[in-house]
Amino acid sequence: MRILVVNVNTTESMTAAIGLSAAAAASPGTEIVPLTPLFGAESVEGNYESYLAAIAVMETVRAYPEPFDAVIQAGYGEHGREGLQELLTVPVVDITEAAASTAMFLGHKYSVVTTLDRTVPLIEDRLKLAGLDARCASVRASGMAVLDLESDPAAAVEAIVTEAERAVRDDRAEVICLGCGGMAGLTEQVIERTGVPVVDGVAAAVTIAESLVRLGLTTSKSRTYAPPRPKRIVNWPPTAAPGFVLADDPHAAAAMA
Amino acid sequence: MRILVVNVNTTESMTAAIGLSAAAAASPGTEIVPLTPLFGAESVEGNYESYLAAIAVMETVRAYPEPFDAVIQAGYGEHGREGLQELLTVPVVDITEAAASTAMFLGHKYSVVTTLDRTVPLIEDRLKLAGLDARCASVRASGMAVLDLESDPAAAVEAIVTEAERAVRDDRAEVICLGCGGMAGLTEQVIERTGVPVVDGVAAAVTIAESLVRLGLTTSKSRTYAPPRPKRIVNWPPTAAPGFVLADDPHAAAAMA
Amino acid sequence: MRILVVNVNTTESMTAAIGLSAAAAASPGTEIVPLTPLFGAESVEGNYESYLAAIAVMETVRAYPEPFDAVIQAGYGEHGREGLQELLTVPVVDITEAAASTAMFLGHKYSVVTTLDRTVPLIEDRLKLAGLDARCASVRASGMAVLDLESDPAAAVEAIVTEAERAVRDDRAEVICLGCGGMAGLTEQVIERTGVPVVDGVAAAVTIAESLVRLGLTTSKSRTYAPPRPKRIVNWPPTAAPGFVLADDPHAAAAMA
Amino acid sequence: MRILVVNVNTTESMTAAIGLSAAAAASPGTEIVPLTPLFGAESVEGNYESYLAAIAVMETVRAYPEPFDAVIQAGYGEHGREGLQELLTVPVVDITEAAASTAMFLGHKYSVVTTLDRTVPLIEDRLKLAGLDARCASVRASGMAVLDLESDPAAAVEAIVTEAERAVRDDRAEVICLGCGGMAGLTEQVIERTGVPVVDGVAAAVTIAESLVRLGLTTSKSRTYAPPRPKRIVNWPPTAAPGFVLADDPHAAAAMA
Amino acid sequence: MRILVVNVNTTESMTAAIGLSAAAAASPGTEIVPLTPLFGAESVEGNYESYLAAIAVMETVRAYPEPFDAVIQAGYGEHGREGLQELLTVPVVDITEAAASTAMFLGHKYSVVTTLDRTVPLIEDRLKLAGLDARCASVRASGMAVLDLESDPAAAVEAIVTEAERAVRDDRAEVICLGCGGMAGLTEQVIERTGVPVVDGVAAAVTIAESLVRLGLTTSKSRTYAPPRPKRIVNWPPTAAPGFVLADDPHAAAAMA
Amino acid sequence: MRILVVNVNTTESMTAAIGLSAAAAASPGTEIVPLTPLFGAESVEGNYESYLAAIAVMETVRAYPEPFDAVIQAGYGEHGREGLQELLTVPVVDITEAAASTAMFLGHKYSVVTTLDRTVPLIEDRLKLAGLDARCASVRASGMAVLDLESDPAAAVEAIVTEAERAVRDDRAEVICLGCGGMAGLTEQVIERTGVPVVDGVAAAVTIAESLVRLGLTTSKSRTYAPPRPKRIVNWPPTAAPGFVLADDPHAAAAMA
Repeated sequence: MRILVVNVNTTESMTAAIGLSAAAAASPGTEIVPLTPLFGAESVEGNYESYLAAIAVMETVRAYPEPFDAVIQAGYGEHGREGLQELLTVPVVDITEAAASTAMFLGHKYSVVTTLDRTVPLIEDRLKLAGLDARCASVRASGMAVLDLESDPAAAVEAIVTEAERAVRDDRAEVICLGCGGMAGLTEQVIERTGVPVVDGVAAAVTIAESLVRLGLTTSKSRTYAPPRPKRIVNWPPTAAPGFVLADDPHAAAAMA
Repeated sequence: MRILVVNVNTTESMTAAIGLSAAAAASPGTEIVPLTPLFGAESVEGNYESYLAAIAVMETVRAYPEPFDAVIQAGYGEHGREGLQELLTVPVVDITEAAASTAMFLGHKYSVVTTLDRTVPLIEDRLKLAGLDARCASVRASGMAVLDLESDPAAAVEAIVTEAERAVRDDRAEVICLGCGGMAGLTEQVIERTGVPVVDGVAAAVTIAESLVRLGLTTSKSRTYAPPRPKRIVNWPPTAAPGFVLADDPHAAAAMA
Repeated sequence: MRILVVNVNTTESMTAAIGLSAAAAASPGTEIVPLTPLFGAESVEGNYESYLAAIAVMETVRAYPEPFDAVIQAGYGEHGREGLQELLTVPVVDITEAAASTAMFLGHKYSVVTTLDRTVPLIEDRLKLAGLDARCASVRASGMAVLDLESDPAAAVEAIVTEAERAVRDDRAEVICLGCGGMAGLTEQVIERTGVPVVDGVAAAVTIAESLVRLGLTTSKSRTYAPPRPKRIVNWPPTAAPGFVLADDPHAAAAMA
Repeated sequence: MRILVVNVNTTESMTAAIGLSAAAAASPGTEIVPLTPLFGAESVEGNYESYLAAIAVMETVRAYPEPFDAVIQAGYGEHGREGLQELLTVPVVDITEAAASTAMFLGHKYSVVTTLDRTVPLIEDRLKLAGLDARCASVRASGMAVLDLESDPAAAVEAIVTEAERAVRDDRAEVICLGCGGMAGLTEQVIERTGVPVVDGVAAAVTIAESLVRLGLTTSKSRTYAPPRPKRIVNWPPTAAPGFVLADDPHAAAAMA
Repeated sequence: MRILVVNVNTTESMTAAIGLSAAAAASPGTEIVPLTPLFGAESVEGNYESYLAAIAVMETVRAYPEPFDAVIQAGYGEHGREGLQELLTVPVVDITEAAASTAMFLGHKYSVVTTLDRTVPLIEDRLKLAGLDARCASVRASGMAVLDLESDPAAAVEAIVTEAERAVRDDRAEVICLGCGGMAGLTEQVIERTGVPVVDGVAAAVTIAESLVRLGLTTSKSRTYAPPRPKRIVNWPPTAAPGFVLADDPHAAAAMA
Repeated sequence: MRILVVNVNTTESMTAAIGLSAAAAASPGTEIVPLTPLFGAESVEGNYESYLAAIAVMETVRAYPEPFDAVIQAGYGEHGREGLQELLTVPVVDITEAAASTAMFLGHKYSVVTTLDRTVPLIEDRLKLAGLDARCASVRASGMAVLDLESDPAAAVEAIVTEAERAVRDDRAEVICLGCGGMAGLTEQVIERTGVPVVDGVAAAVTIAESLVRLGLTTSKSRTYAPPRPKRIVNWPPTAAPGFVLADDPHAAAAMA
C-alpha cells in the first residue's frame, strides 16, 4: 500500500526526516511517500501558518498524480484534517490524534511535550475537538522553535527531556507524546530519562493508517466528511484558471459518484 | 470607526446583503466595509471550502489598503478566526460566537438554525472550541443550501421557521440564532412564529466590534494570538514573488514592534 | 436610552464610582442611572449578603418610577440576575457575565482577579451556571476586602496587580477581568504591569446593554424567565401592606399581557 | 435532636404536609419543627419567588428562638442554601440535593419529576452547581402547579406518574425523585406504576440531616461558608431598626468565635 | 437491622478495626456484621488485587447464611459495587461514594487523602464513574501503604495530616475524606490540624445504609442492576461443583421472582 | 508475534468465532491464540458476570505457559483491563476501546450497537472511563442476547441493522461499532444497509495490538499499572496452595526487576 506523509512546513530537510521516521515504522510492502507542501511557511508555529498549511496540504495531496491508500498529516496541533477527509475517501490520520490515541492504550494519562509556548493552545484545542483530551495530563512547551530541533539538537534534547520529566512527576503523566513532527529522533533519550513509554506521532500514524487500510475502512461520507458539493470556486488553485469545479478532482470523484 | 465585514464566500450579492445587515446594526459614525474574499467558493458548506475561506479572508484583510478598527468574519461555523487574530491587533469578531454570546444574555438556552445538515458538526465544533456550547440546546439544519436562501426565499423561510419551532418546543431553546450570514432578513418572521428573541450574527457582531473598539480593547498578544514570527514563506501569496517575510505586512507591524 | 446600573451594596460612594465608570463607557445619548439598593450590606462578600442583595436589587428596580431600557447588576459573582429577568422584559446584564463574555473575544483564556478568597467560589459558580467557565483560566483573590479598595487604594493596586501577573504567568490567562464593581479605576495599572487586555465588568456591561437595546432584543419570556405567575405574596415588600399581587407591578405588566 | 424543616412558600397547609413527611422519616428521638417563612409567595415557581424565599428562609431560621441541630430547606430547585450555610454551623440540607444524592445509591441514572415546565431549568441549575447532575437522566415537568397538588390530587397523580413512566422508558432513569416538597404522598403510586424506587426529598433530607448530626459533622467554615464578616446592614430585617450587625445573631456566634 | 460490612482485604485485624468504626457510627438496634473475604490479598493497593477483591466480596456476601438489610463495601476506590447491586435487592453502599456524598453536604469542595500514589487513579476513576467528581478538589497520596497504618501509626498520622493540610491550602478543599478503610482512627487528629470537617467513609456508609433501609429504599432492578439472567457458570465458585445456576442464590431470588 | 485473544465467556464456539475474526485481521506472521477463560459464565451480560470474567481472564492469561507479545480482552464493555495491565508489560487492548478509538478516525461521531439493554450502561461507563465518550453519539441495544447471535442469526441481523440505522439517522452517528465480540460476521450487512463504515472491535484490536508491538511500545509501569506489590494472597488461585506471592509470575517478573 502507498501512504502519503505530508509535512506541514516547507523545509525539505524536515520532510525527509519525517519520511525516514515513517518508513521505519512501516510494514514491509508499505510505500511511504513524503511530500512537502507546494506553498507555506518554513515552520508552522501559530494559527496563520497552520491555516495556510491546511490548505497547502490539501492542494498538495490533490495534485499528487498517483493513486494512494491513506494520508498522514504530519504536523502537531494543526488545522486542516477535516478538509482532507472531505476530499478523500481513503483514511486520513493526523499525528496529534494518532499519538494521543496510541498513548491512551499504554497509560492512565499522557502528556504532550511540544516546541513553543504559543503552540500549546493549538494542541489543546485539537485534542479537545478530537475528544481525546479527557486523559491528557498536560501539554508542555520546551521553548525550542521547530527549526531549533535541527540546528541545536543537544539543547533541544535537554529542554524536551526536562519538560517530560516534569510532566511525569508533576502532572502525573504515564506516557509522553512528542509534540512535533521533527522530534521523532528523541524517543530513546526521553524514555531513558523518564522511564515511561514515549509515542512519536508519525510512527503511530503510520501504523494506524496501515491498520485502517488493511481492515478496509474508509472515511465516512454520511455527513461531516461528505465530498464538497459541486460548485464554482474562483481564483483557486493559484496555478489554475479561475473558476474550476471541484468534482474534476480524481480522488473525490469516487465518493461523489 | 471603520469595520471590515468579510464574507466567506465569493458571491457578491451575499456580500452586499451582509453589508446591508451590518450597516443597519451599526451606530452613527461607524463605516461598514463589506469585503468579498479574493478567492474561494461561491458558498461555504463544508470543511474544504471553509479552510479555503479561512485563508482567503486573511489574505483579503491583509490586502485591504486603508486603516480599520475591527474585523468581522461573516460566516457561520467557519475556520480561520484565530489566524486573523494573530495577524491583527484590532478586535476580530466571528459571527457564530457573536450570536451565541448575545443569545446567552437573553434566555437560558439557545439553538442555532442553519442551512445544510452537513454544516451542523462544523458549527457544533466552533461553539465547543469557543467554550460557548454549554447552553446551546441544539444546532438544527433547515436543509436549505446557502444559495437557496436567495433563489427560493419563501421555501427557505418555511424550512427555517419550522426548525426554529422544533428547537423551542423539543430542545427547549429560549432564543434562536440564525446560523448563516445570509439569513439576516428572516428575523421578523422567525420571531413572529416562535415568540422568542432571534439573534442575527452579523448584527450582533457589529455591536460587539463597536463595543470593543469603544472600550479600547484589543486582541491579546501574550500567547495564542501573538503575531507570527518572522520567517520565510514560499510561493505565497499567489500574486506575490515567492519568499516574502510576513513582518512586511502593515497591520501586523504594530503588534510586532 | 436609559440604563439602570444597580450597585449590590449600600455604600453610596461605591454607587457613585460605579456610575462614573458606566457613564464613561456609555454612548452619547445613553443616560446612566446609578442606584443604591434600598436595603442590604455595606459590602457584599458572601452568600448571605449576596442573597439579600439579590432581592434588594429586584425591589429597588421595581420601585424605580420611570421607564428604562436595560438594567445592569453591578456586583461580581452575585445571585439574583435570573429574578430580575423574570420581572422585566428589558435586557438584564450581570457584570460577571459581561466581563467574561467580552474577555473571550480578546484571548484564548481569561482570569478573574477579585477581592477576598471567600468570594472565589461564588464567582466560579456564577461562571459555571452561565456556561462561561470553559475558557476561564482561574479566579484569583487579592485578599483585599471590597471597602479596602476605597480606603487603601495603593495596597489594593499592588495586591491586585500581583495576582494578575500570576494569572498570566502561571494560569496562562491572556486577558484579565477585574472582579469587583469597585475596581474599575485600576484598569490602566494592570494593563501596564501585565501587558494583556483588562476588562472592567461595568464598562463591558454598559456596551452590551446598549447593544441589546439597539438591536431591539429583549429577555426571552418563553420559559425560564417568564413573568411570575399572579399569586399571593405575604408580608412583602416591607413597606407595603401584606398580600399584594405581583401583576400590579408596571414593569412586568407588558410581559404578562 | 431537633431539625428545622423550612417550607419555602407561605402556604401553611403545605408546611404541615411537609412536616408530616419529615416526621414519618425521622428516627425516634428526633424532633421535627416545621416552619413557614415570615414572608414570601404562596407557592414558589420561579426565580423571583425563589430568591424571595431564599432570604425569607434565612430570616425565619435566624428568628427561631431555640437551639437546633440541623436545617432542611424544603423546596425543590430553590436558591438560598449557601446563605444558610454561612449563617449556621449546624448542617443544612437542601431537598433537591438530598433526593439526588440518595437516588444515586439506588440506580445508575435518576430523573426528577416536578411541577411546571418553567421550574425545570431551576432544578437543572441547582443539580449542576451541586455537582450531582452527571447521572441525572432528565428533569421532567408534569404541568401541575404547586397548589394543584393539593386542589386536584387525582389529576396530579396521573400527570406525575405519566412523566415518571416516560423518564424510565425514554430517558433510561432507574430511580425517580419527586421534585416538589408537596409530592411526598405520591410515592407509593409512582412505585406501583413504574416499578422503580422513588425518592421523596423531604424524607431523604431528614435521614441525611440526622446522619450528619450523629456523626458530629458540621458545615465547613474554612472558606465558602465562613460566617459573614461583621458589617453594617441597613434597613434590614424589615422589623428591626436600620443598621444591625450580623454578629449579634446567636446561631452564627459560635462559628465566628 | 443487620448490615454486612465487608472488608476488601484478608487481614483480619483490619476487618476488626473497620467493624469497630462501623459499630461506633451505627444506631441503636443496628447489628454490624464485619466480614473478611474468603480469598484475596492482605491489602488492596492496585487493580489486580481490587478485581480479585470485587469477586471475593461478592462470593463472601453470597455465602453469608443469614438474612441482612444492607451491605457496605469497605474498600476505598475498589471495583465491584455494581456486581453486588445485581446480586442483591438490599442497598449496597461503597465507602468511597459514601464519603464523597457526605462531604458534599459540608463544604464547597472536598479532597481525599489516601495511601499510595498508585491508588490515586483508582479513586479518581471511581468518583468519576459515580458522578461525584465535580466538586472533588484533589485525591492526594500520603505514601503510606495500607498495612503501614497499623504498623507505624505515628508516621501515618503525620503523612496523612500533611497531605490534608496541603489539600486545604493549595487545592482549596473545605472537607477531607479519609481514603482508606483503615484510617478511621485518625479523624480527630486531622480535624485538629486542618480545621475542616473530616469524613470517614465507613461511618458515613453506615448512616447512609441505615437511612436507605429506614426509608424502605432498595436497589433499582429496572436495567443496570437487574439480577443476573439464569445461565450456566462453569468452575465457579471454587468450592462448588462446576456448572451451577446463579438463580439458586437465596438473596437474588426475590429480585428474580 | 503471538497475540492472546481472550474471550470473556466460557462458550467455546464463541471463542472459536472470535479467533477466526482475529486471525482474519492479523498480519502475516502474527499468531492468534484464542483462549477461553478457566471459569465463568457462558455469556457475559451484566456486572456480576463481567467481574467474574475480569478475574478469570487474568488467571487464564497468567496460566498461559508460553511467551506472548500482546493480549486482547475480547468482551464489549467488560471490567478487568486495568488488572491485566498491572500483571503484564506487553500491551493489553480492550475491544471496546479499540473499536471506539478506530471509529474516531473515520467519522465525526460513532454509535455502538450492542446486545441487551442492560449492557448499555456498562459500555457507556467503560467509554467514559477510557475518555473515549466525547464523540459517542449513542449506545443502542438490539435486544438480542449474546447467545442469540449464534442461535438465531437472521433475527439478530435484522435487530442490529435496525438499531444501526436509527443511530445514523436519529443520533447522527457516522460510524457504527458492533458492540459484542460475537457480532463480527455482521459487518457487511450493516455497511450495506447504513452506508457508513462499520468497526468490529476484535479486528480493530488485533491491528492496534500489532501496531503497539511493532513500535516497541509497552504498558507504562510508572503508576497506575505498576506491577502488584509482593504480598500475601490467600486461597487464590483456586487450584494453588493458599499464600502465594504474586511476584513469582513470569509475565510480571520483567516489569518488577
